[in-house]
Amino acid sequence: MRTAIYPGTFDPVTYGHIHIAERASRLFEKIIIAVASDNYKKNLFSLEERMYLIKESTKHLPNVKVDSFAGLAADYAKKKKATGLIRGLRAVSDFEYEMQIAAMNKHLNPKLETLFLMTEAKYSFLSSSSIKDVAMVGGNIEGLVPPIVVQELMRKYGNNQ
Amino acid sequence: MRTAIYPGTFDPVTYGHIHIAERASRLFEKIIIAVASDNYKKNLFSLEERMYLIKESTKHLPNVKVDSFAGLAADYAKKKKATGLIRGLRAVSDFEYEMQIAAMNKHLNPKLETLFLMTEAKYSFLSSSSIKDVAMVGGNIEGLVPPIVVQELMRKYGNNQ
Amino acid sequence: MRTAIYPGTFDPVTYGHIHIAERASRLFEKIIIAVASDNYKKNLFSLEERMYLIKESTKHLPNVKVDSFAGLAADYAKKKKATGLIRGLRAVSDFEYEMQIAAMNKHLNPKLETLFLMTEAKYSFLSSSSIKDVAMVGGNIEGLVPPIVVQELMRKYGNNQ
Amino acid sequence: MRTAIYPGTFDPVTYGHIHIAERASRLFEKIIIAVASDNYKKNLFSLEERMYLIKESTKHLPNVKVDSFAGLAADYAKKKKATGLIRGLRAVSDFEYEMQIAAMNKHLNPKLETLFLMTEAKYSFLSSSSIKDVAMVGGNIEGLVPPIVVQELMRKYGNNQ
Amino acid sequence: MRTAIYPGTFDPVTYGHIHIAERASRLFEKIIIAVASDNYKKNLFSLEERMYLIKESTKHLPNVKVDSFAGLAADYAKKKKATGLIRGLRAVSDFEYEMQIAAMNKHLNPKLETLFLMTEAKYSFLSSSSIKDVAMVGGNIEGLVPPIVVQELMRKYGNNQ
Amino acid sequence: MRTAIYPGTFDPVTYGHIHIAERASRLFEKIIIAVASDNYKKNLFSLEERMYLIKESTKHLPNVKVDSFAGLAADYAKKKKATGLIRGLRAVSDFEYEMQIAAMNKHLNPKLETLFLMTEAKYSFLSSSSIKDVAMVGGNIEGLVPPIVVQELMRKYGNNQ
Repeated sequence: MRTAIYPGTFDPVTYGHIHIAERASRLFEKIIIAVASDNYKKNLFSLEERMYLIKESTKHLPNVKVDSFAGLAADYAKKKKATGLIRGLRAVSDFEYEMQIAAMNKHLNPKLETLFLMTEAKYSFLSSSSIKDVAMVGGNIEGLVPPIVVQELMRKYGNNQ
Repeated sequence: MRTAIYPGTFDPVTYGHIHIAERASRLFEKIIIAVASDNYKKNLFSLEERMYLIKESTKHLPNVKVDSFAGLAADYAKKKKATGLIRGLRAVSDFEYEMQIAAMNKHLNPKLETLFLMTEAKYSFLSSSSIKDVAMVGGNIEGLVPPIVVQELMRKYGNNQ
Repeated sequence: MRTAIYPGTFDPVTYGHIHIAERASRLFEKIIIAVASDNYKKNLFSLEERMYLIKESTKHLPNVKVDSFAGLAADYAKKKKATGLIRGLRAVSDFEYEMQIAAMNKHLNPKLETLFLMTEAKYSFLSSSSIKDVAMVGGNIEGLVPPIVVQELMRKYGNNQ
Repeated sequence: MRTAIYPGTFDPVTYGHIHIAERASRLFEKIIIAVASDNYKKNLFSLEERMYLIKESTKHLPNVKVDSFAGLAADYAKKKKATGLIRGLRAVSDFEYEMQIAAMNKHLNPKLETLFLMTEAKYSFLSSSSIKDVAMVGGNIEGLVPPIVVQELMRKYGNNQ
Repeated sequence: MRTAIYPGTFDPVTYGHIHIAERASRLFEKIIIAVASDNYKKNLFSLEERMYLIKESTKHLPNVKVDSFAGLAADYAKKKKATGLIRGLRAVSDFEYEMQIAAMNKHLNPKLETLFLMTEAKYSFLSSSSIKDVAMVGGNIEGLVPPIVVQELMRKYGNNQ
Repeated sequence: MRTAIYPGTFDPVTYGHIHIAERASRLFEKIIIAVASDNYKKNLFSLEERMYLIKESTKHLPNVKVDSFAGLAADYAKKKKATGLIRGLRAVSDFEYEMQIAAMNKHLNPKLETLFLMTEAKYSFLSSSSIKDVAMVGGNIEGLVPPIVVQELMRKYGNNQ
């Protein structure tokens, strides 16, 4: 059985992430969304919250599991016997950065292949950061993240739009 | 069984292409290298020659087959029941162009997922065109294409280095 | 009254072009879509055909006119007393090329300001060339160009899909 | 009357910004330079200082006004009945980032069109950050920002060059 | 004595090229501008004309010589015992292409170092092609190429502006 | 004697930096690796440590010296009578940033020419930051930095792999 991991911070998950997971689920027997437990960034949501929001948002994908990992994604992939590591590509600056990560992961785990899937055009401008920037000042984020994420962001930022 | 196609002109195949095929062969049960029969470019090698050179160069990959196609890669994928379309990424200009092709293929065949694999760094400057440019004036292309391709290029350009 | 020109080859017009014209029509009192009569490219459609297809596709925009020009867009803008020159931006390679054109136009006509509008995400992969490539081999282009352009492309390529 | 806003932090204003304002002032009846009051960045200059420096530097442009805003630029534009939002483009990384902002603003305010103007070549390397980096260590910034900004930066950093 | 070659087609030379030659002449004891005799492009000017125009335009640079070469620049550099190969960089698309050429030259001649110099901002939009495009339709190219090149382009295109 | 400086933070030096120094040492009589003493970033290694690691790693290059500087690299170059400032280029985002720095340095010191050398393909994904990110969680960095740097990073992060 071919397994691929889809690692990230997902703080919080967006429709961009979910579409990548959907696309990946057609290419592999099993997809593990691997949430970075601690990545030295200040996250808005705790690991538990981030995992919960993704689980709720990917319930319709039976071969997609959600897990967490610490340390290197390349090591986590080895432990899970994954042959693929999935990343979404939105734009050129993504691409450059992702190429560097992929090359480093190739160095760390030569049997792991990074594969890039294209973010759907209508979500190509989305990022977890831009969602938070807009939500923080009460902007409308409906249609960009699942309803449960809209709700949790509103709770975090204490506005009721 | 998950199948992916890897379409292209391959005029001629380089070590860059072969490494992408090797990487893809670990991710899918079956890979079909699909050689474009007629793509309105003036090719140096005939379809038969291009297919022969790839077959010889991928004999070590049991789940990789070589075929030809006419018309749209998206239609060919449908006929072969492929769920993936593989492309190698070298550089930013590649990326832009490939994103456009991938979006058009998504329009033409929504069930087909384009996935991008990263060309190994040491082949990131290679293209079939640059190989031909160098071979034409007698430059050394060993190490960049398989020996059989070196030989055929020398025959085409009539030099014996 | 502020006028802007939107120059191009439009061989043929796509929904990408039409959306740029719609956006521009909200920013200026008058927009002139300026079709290059002769640009040393081999066009599929004649100047008359290209102008006809745009006129039909922009009838709903009262302040948008269609005209043709020969020579430099910068000179044409001067003749029309236009203060703006509009270009659509899809991707980074567009951007580079457009920056060069804009700088040259600034040299040729310092009073003319080039302004870039962003192509809507869902059309960001569209170009007149990719439309022709797909239409030529009978691929489905509905939803990417207006119905009248679908029809004319089918006539040109002699297929009835 | 067509109005456009030109939002930013302007910490401090540079000749790059001023040239964009000049170009925009030829395209619209009214330009509002909208200074972000609080953008979660640590600014060197207070909102009042930033507004003062821009006002002094754009006195020669009668249809350019300076204002401040809090929250989303897209909401501010709505309040001001602006149809255009102006951004200067210097380089590819600008472009990517700006495309994301523009797409988000389109989501937040569909009637607002973002339009990009090209920074003059000789200022294409300028940014408020690079100005501050150089001024902080006593480097010469004359010719890159208006004299009043040179003076205020020297006062802030306590050097008399 | 450290020598570098500066290879190209120079059809025709622009102020962009001349500034790169000036910059390079401060870094090396000797610079050889190496004009490609035959590069499978259709050139407007003959090899002799292209060399003449560069010689006239670089007379003020005593350590800059003009020569021609056939075949690979990497081989020519070896013959001339050059340790450096100079290229001007204008934009990102240049950069990508130049990286590929440089990597291939490293493969062909490992002792030769390609070094990139930045085109002056005000010439960053210039190319021999854009100069010809503008000159062909009678546009003003003064200030972009030396007077002798303006004159020769006018003669070629038969206009007297 | 032609001298060039190669400025940077080098926190810590990688094989990417060392290869650039090797390449530069063939182009100039003297290369000064200029370590920024204080650049407002939080460095992992002290200035003394960073200089020590570079000195140890470039002992095989007789015309390469290691020094430190404070303030502007452009001023430091002037003091050292250097005609060249060397920077390594890895990727497009590097390129953009480096172009901005180079243009600012040209403004600050018009006699100083910035020259870019291409990072070897196999190190094109390397940065001091990515090395630290991997080393911090115990990943294998052998082959990417000199053995003495591997050792010092292990000491800093207190792991014995």
